[in-house]
Amino acid sequence: MQKIYLAGPEVFLPNALEMGKAHKRLCQHYGYEGLFPLDNTIFGNNPKEIAEAIRQANQAMIRMCDIVIANLSPFRGPEPDSGTVWEVGYAQGLGKNVVAYSTDMRTLKDKTQSILHLGDAPCDALGMSIEDFGLTHNLMFSPIVIANSFEASLQYLALNHL
Amino acid sequence: MQKIYLAGPEVFLPNALEMGKAHKRLCQHYGYEGLFPLDNTIFGNNPKEIAEAIRQANQAMIRMCDIVIANLSPFRGPEPDSGTVWEVGYAQGLGKNVVAYSTDMRTLKDKTQSILHLGDAPCDALGMSIEDFGLTHNLMFSPIVIANSFEASLQYLALNHL
Repeated sequence: MQKIYLAGPEVFLPNALEMGKAHKRLCQHYGYEGLFPLDNTIFGNNPKEIAEAIRQANQAMIRMCDIVIANLSPFRGPEPDSGTVWEVGYAQGLGKNVVAYSTDMRTLKDKTQSILHLGDAPCDALGMSIEDFGLTHNLMFSPIVIANSFEASLQYLALNHL
Repeated sequence: MQKIYLAGPEVFLPNALEMGKAHKRLCQHYGYEGLFPLDNTIFGNNPKEIAEAIRQANQAMIRMCDIVIANLSPFRGPEPDSGTVWEVGYAQGLGKNVVAYSTDMRTLKDKTQSILHLGDAPCDALGMSIEDFGLTHNLMFSPIVIANSFEASLQYLALNHL
């Protein structure tokens, strides 16, 4: 059974553990084993030690997996959660299979203009141009964003025998 | 001479090419060769082909490099630019040496509360908790954020013979 690392900002939700359990049950339903970062047991004597232990445990869990499903929905602005994005890049660097979803599938341009109240401006308030290739995310993600929900990502994996 | 991939949202600035040239000159000053994503020659018949060509060229450039210097300053919110973050994770997955800087070196908690006008709240407006380990970024970046400017990152590399 292939292992899927469940990457996303769900870890910051008050009901993170239940979310993790629900996603793991869905993985099982589609014939995969889901691994959730908060399942790791963490030890540390102070905040920095704990943070480092979490980082190393997450990295090790990604290395153990065959696939990553990442939630790249907008997080505190038009960009996705940076921890999740790091995990996506890391997994791709390791040659893992990565698929991603976003609850907001507008183009990056529409999403950025809307979330930052920029109207039709081609740039943000600092004069930085907004990427305009008709993609939902920064172009570095173009091949992997394939669905608008976690379950749709699993269905995509199962249908494509990944 | 070691090659450094210059990752950051500078590519979205109106003077991106000059910024790239200035950073490459600084690299040379410290004994490195800087490679800037916009130096790639890109061909494509439509926006999606062009985006894909840029993505592949950037990936190839990272693979060619020994080191990545990444600008992880806040980008359109408290999080860094997702394209840059992807490149950081990818490079670390490939085993490259990665260092990062941010013009905002407050803790992630202080920065998020301030940029999103959250006061002292431990959560954002959606009830998602704000990481509070005393780090400047999401914990997945903890070992690599070492400076508050591009040049300070180069000085760090040179001093540590990296």
